[in-house]
Amino acid sequence: MGRALLTDFYELTMAASYLRRGMTAPATFSLFVRRLPPTRGFLVAAGLEECLEFLEAFRFEEEDLAYLTSLGFADEVLEAFASLRFSGDVWAIPEGRVVLAEEPLLEVTAPMPEAQLVETYLLNKISFHTAVASKAARCVLAAQGRFELVDFGLRRTQGLEAGMAAARASAMVGFGATSNVEAARRYGLTPSGTMAHSYVEAFPREIDAFRAFAGDFPERTTFLVDTYDTLTGVTRAIEVIRDLGLEHHAAIRLDSGDLSALARGARRLLDDAGLTEVRIVVSGNLDEHRLARLVQDGAPVDVAGVGTRMGVSADAPYLDTAYKLVAYDGRPVAKLSTDKATYPGAKQVFRAAGLRDTLGLRDEAPPPGSDPILEPVMEGGRRLRGSEDLEVQRRRYESDAAQLPGSATELVESIAPTAGVSVALASLTEGVRSGVRWE
Amino acid sequence: MGRALLTDFYELTMAASYLRRGMTAPATFSLFVRRLPPTRGFLVAAGLEECLEFLEAFRFEEEDLAYLTSLGFADEVLEAFASLRFSGDVWAIPEGRVVLAEEPLLEVTAPMPEAQLVETYLLNKISFHTAVASKAARCVLAAQGRFELVDFGLRRTQGLEAGMAAARASAMVGFGATSNVEAARRYGLTPSGTMAHSYVEAFPREIDAFRAFAGDFPERTTFLVDTYDTLTGVTRAIEVIRDLGLEHHAAIRLDSGDLSALARGARRLLDDAGLTEVRIVVSGNLDEHRLARLVQDGAPVDVAGVGTRMGVSADAPYLDTAYKLVAYDGRPVAKLSTDKATYPGAKQVFRAAGLRDTLGLRDEAPPPGSDPILEPVMEGGRRLRGSEDLEVQRRRYESDAAQLPGSATELVESIAPTAGVSVALASLTEGVRSGVRWE
Repeated sequence: MGRALLTDFYELTMAASYLRRGMTAPATFSLFVRRLPPTRGFLVAAGLEECLEFLEAFRFEEEDLAYLTSLGFADEVLEAFASLRFSGDVWAIPEGRVVLAEEPLLEVTAPMPEAQLVETYLLNKISFHTAVASKAARCVLAAQGRFELVDFGLRRTQGLEAGMAAARASAMVGFGATSNVEAARRYGLTPSGTMAHSYVEAFPREIDAFRAFAGDFPERTTFLVDTYDTLTGVTRAIEVIRDLGLEHHAAIRLDSGDLSALARGARRLLDDAGLTEVRIVVSGNLDEHRLARLVQDGAPVDVAGVGTRMGVSADAPYLDTAYKLVAYDGRPVAKLSTDKATYPGAKQVFRAAGLRDTLGLRDEAPPPGSDPILEPVMEGGRRLRGSEDLEVQRRRYESDAAQLPGSATELVESIAPTAGVSVALASLTEGVRSGVRWE
Repeated sequence: MGRALLTDFYELTMAASYLRRGMTAPATFSLFVRRLPPTRGFLVAAGLEECLEFLEAFRFEEEDLAYLTSLGFADEVLEAFASLRFSGDVWAIPEGRVVLAEEPLLEVTAPMPEAQLVETYLLNKISFHTAVASKAARCVLAAQGRFELVDFGLRRTQGLEAGMAAARASAMVGFGATSNVEAARRYGLTPSGTMAHSYVEAFPREIDAFRAFAGDFPERTTFLVDTYDTLTGVTRAIEVIRDLGLEHHAAIRLDSGDLSALARGARRLLDDAGLTEVRIVVSGNLDEHRLARLVQDGAPVDVAGVGTRMGVSADAPYLDTAYKLVAYDGRPVAKLSTDKATYPGAKQVFRAAGLRDTLGLRDEAPPPGSDPILEPVMEGGRRLRGSEDLEVQRRRYESDAAQLPGSATELVESIAPTAGVSVALASLTEGVRSGVRWE
């Protein structure tokens, strides 16, 4: 299956209309988040890699065209679609950087039909990757480095593709491992897993299950201790750890109940048995607030598996993204709808220390002490560099995150900084609005 | 890429352990929703089709095995994985049926390693498809048949795969069309689209854009009228509709502002111009509550495009699904964790008129006046029937939905009915719990 039809129908009709009319002059579209969700003090740019792959490979396949024929698209349009490739330029904020409302995550400049046809795909990818990276970043902030975070999201993300995105995005902001094996393979992450309740239940007695698993995986056994009674489970795990000499490798996992209290109880039992190196893994409905609570409680947790609520960004499952035409054929344009007005022109974001950002025009000089953060990433339909290492993106995130004001990183009632607007952009906006209004 | 590694790591280690130990006796797992989200009075079963496709095609590819080798899986395990196929049986509630908490959406019975390996994929698919079908059903209820609903979700769903699921699930419960072209092709839906603000802005004047699009698509023009000033946009659309004689085909779309008031204003202008057949489409942040408001306002709307909030099930973006071992090697089993206890044994749901459900054992006789709703859908790894038509599923949904009590279909403070438990299941549960506790 090609991907060209993974689009909204109107992209095809508009592109058809442009092609018939020879409206193939360069258009610039800007992809940005209008407003942050109320529970977000910042966002983390993500999803660019898959967008660039898509753009480089964009084409209508035979079967796509056959379907469009059945919908009544004209032959001349289908011929044009058949040879259409993405030949444009892309500027973008690199993945891992902190971004704010109104700041273009990417800008596409291409012949109008091409720029229009790729809208839906780009919006979809950037919206979710950025949403889930931003959610995962809050989890990392909440954990304060006290314990390692592992992505457990795959079983309840909104599709497998979303699970892949959540694994990648959470690694980008500092998660240490993932349960998602395909993501581990594809992105070079550390796969991580324990055992399920079903495993324990498949044996006549809990301790039989523990002995069996530890015998098969002595280097990586995590005993799930809450199938029957949690602290009894811990004592059984202790017995097996001692019998098999696993004190340097083993862990136990708590997946239900009062995790702080149970972690303390389990730690005490383990320590009393001299098993101070045995680690404690917790899981079950965790999100940034529950992680913060574990930290606040001083719970002796070593690893936290964070699944569903991170993987679907449960408190903010979508971003208010837009892909707006800002220039066509050399003319800056803007939308004036009452509640959705936009700024015209190809843009740049200029960032000064402390994440003081200015939204300006691409071609203007940076304000003193500021650097542009959108970079050219594609030219003439070809990428300007290969895939980035996630480690590079993680360092980028950490560097930006370290500069965020405390009000932005608060987990509750966070306040998102906003970018200022340059004089040049303000003037252009005023000019375009007056011009259009009185046409 | 194969799909076998789209799984949690522990599924592989547990399966490896089972295989090494010859623990290949039949296991039955039950996939169900523990509790409904607070804003749901019922769920709609969905996602089965993709699960069956997955099971039938399940296998480890060469590259999957190569990756597992690098992770240290033993040769004997990898050999067993290489030849492993899904050979089990599946019973399921057919797609489109209303389901409640604790009711198995599907049950898998297969040799333990197989049944374990497919957990993550099945949970992922059933969870999201069911979540989004249930959200879309609330939108359909809210619209009360006053206007047609169209899926506009693709641009902000959590991945493209999620967009496909949202298109399919919303069609299943009564949406009339989708903007998602690939979904229209694959599922035989009606593709639908209008024009974007960018199209209007690409022309010197709004009316030029209207004339151009109407000239290119006279049979399917929807004029987007809110790029500059909405009611002025309507008057320009009227001019073009009259000039080109489109009074039987055209529509206008409102995408911002007070939709009820603007729809009334637009309807008045259209009617005054004698264009009573021109339809009004609305869109923009719609969900069941805003649709209900349009109905309550008596807004003269013909079509509503429902996008993001339906497509991500924004108020309940995940379901509390579980895939629990309920029997192994002829022995019923159950989990006793304090807050996550489960019922043992292969089950059946018996449904009486008015959606009075009883959760029972698969092999018990139905209570008088009740019919079993789980059906065998796969035997020995082979599907027992071909793909179902969405129309069949829609009729199934409509038939069940018509029997839901009013308290379940309320949009605010809905109360979900719950299934009763049969005497046989209650006895078995009590027996298993006593037995395990005192082992």
